[in-house]
Amino acid sequence: MSAVQICEVSPRDGLQNESVVLSTEVKAALVERAVAAGARRVEAVSFVNPQRVPQMADAEAVMAAVPRVEGVSYSGLVMNRRGLDRALAAEVDEVNLVVVATDTFCLRNQGTTTVQACDAARDLVAAAREAGLFTTVTVGASFGCPFEGEVSADRLDEVLRRVADAGPDEVALADTIGVAVPAEVSTRLTLLDDRVVPGTRTRLHLHDTRSTGVANALAGVASGVDVLDASIGGTGGCPFAPNATGNVATEDLIYTFERSGITTGLSLTSLIESAEWLQAEIGRRLPSALLHAGPFPG
Amino acid sequence: MSAVQICEVSPRDGLQNESVVLSTEVKAALVERAVAAGARRVEAVSFVNPQRVPQMADAEAVMAAVPRVEGVSYSGLVMNRRGLDRALAAEVDEVNLVVVATDTFCLRNQGTTTVQACDAARDLVAAAREAGLFTTVTVGASFGCPFEGEVSADRLDEVLRRVADAGPDEVALADTIGVAVPAEVSTRLTLLDDRVVPGTRTRLHLHDTRSTGVANALAGVASGVDVLDASIGGTGGCPFAPNATGNVATEDLIYTFERSGITTGLSLTSLIESAEWLQAEIGRRLPSALLHAGPFPG
Repeated sequence: MSAVQICEVSPRDGLQNESVVLSTEVKAALVERAVAAGARRVEAVSFVNPQRVPQMADAEAVMAAVPRVEGVSYSGLVMNRRGLDRALAAEVDEVNLVVVATDTFCLRNQGTTTVQACDAARDLVAAAREAGLFTTVTVGASFGCPFEGEVSADRLDEVLRRVADAGPDEVALADTIGVAVPAEVSTRLTLLDDRVVPGTRTRLHLHDTRSTGVANALAGVASGVDVLDASIGGTGGCPFAPNATGNVATEDLIYTFERSGITTGLSLTSLIESAEWLQAEIGRRLPSALLHAGPFPG
Repeated sequence: MSAVQICEVSPRDGLQNESVVLSTEVKAALVERAVAAGARRVEAVSFVNPQRVPQMADAEAVMAAVPRVEGVSYSGLVMNRRGLDRALAAEVDEVNLVVVATDTFCLRNQGTTTVQACDAARDLVAAAREAGLFTTVTVGASFGCPFEGEVSADRLDEVLRRVADAGPDEVALADTIGVAVPAEVSTRLTLLDDRVVPGTRTRLHLHDTRSTGVANALAGVASGVDVLDASIGGTGGCPFAPNATGNVATEDLIYTFERSGITTGLSLTSLIESAEWLQAEIGRRLPSALLHAGPFPG
């Protein structure tokens, strides 16, 4: 038996790449559903430029509409000081900062080079910590870049050193475009463990673009990762990465985990019900496997 | 580095659950494409009752249309003596016999109980071997049954003892409805290894119904399985199992294997091209991930 924490990211990464913009009420309901299914950590919103990511323009309203549950950490994605100020005003519990491992993708995603993004993350970590928030840094394109191709272990190592210098509570490797395979997940998590200060938590953010999501998640658990991001329905993607597809579906992970003796505290039945609901709200067939196949035994 | 053989099953298991019936020429072209992509073993046809599986009614014509390539084994699925006679007349190199691990599913699939199917397999193995054919027995529902639910390790063990008594050259565990998880793949392959005569080859037949296909295949390779079934485009299913979906896509396996140091001799580029072609012939979106996401680096 082992255990891993799931960070539910459907309200943020899940919705930001959908063409349909959901109402504030539906977004808040999605957060509530995730919590009801057992999630103790939810990436609820992002405080980025609403002109660049219009789906997240009502972040403050979503956070105001979500009834806070004791023991649940509500997170917001933040790119800069303005975003952090909005996050603080909205009273999130944690902020998710982003650094992309390649310059080309980082420039397209947030208008800075990787080194500049690391510098910004250092300042934001310090400011957020002073305000009492948990801080996590997501390293995008940790396994490959849609523009530069392969991301070498040396390049990633260089970025992880800078991110570790920023001193966040947690660092995540993100397979933003779904190219990782399990062997790489293991070796790159070891690289991460070697770079961060002992006690720093580790997280893995997976996209199931090339059918490797579940295999990569199992490799992450076997390597001792603390947290896995996942998205109800397998929604998600990145508006700035071509052909990006959804995050690994939360219910797909929980199906395999339940049958493999890995505990998460989440309810598979509840997740599938919420995936059905979300699919109806979004109005397109979502990629989750369990949503369509159903649990086993049925 | 390790290696595993791929048995391409799109022409048989892949097509038999598609509502569109392809022409003999297109079926033969699919077999040729699999061989051109590097497959050295192809399940090309099935010699079953054409009234039950109309898609396979032209098995003889397909085999006659396929140009035989030296070193490639062309296989036909066979349920009874009549099927074996047809297979021999069509000059296949091997026959695939089927036993389903639960009585309910076995009765629906082939009109016999599991024990009766084992008895039939024994006679067919003897007759096929006498005719010089390679013999493989596929044990359907080895990980779960759509009608009876869980299939216990004890039940599977009992079936494997009978199948081993039949003395085939190879035995396969089939996850017919895509419910297996990697830990079960490992333990049930060990069960299989313990039951069969030393030297018997082992094969794994996976369906990617619950996003576990790639993870299960990797577990199979790690457990030393000799052969993996896979289907170009991720086509496939079972006409007698509700909600059955496709086999794990050949190109999805090869993507992960290539990046994991597992050699198969198959060309990813060629497989993706054939998946595109097959999708156009079938006229529906096929579930293969690599078909839609493309290779990486692109």
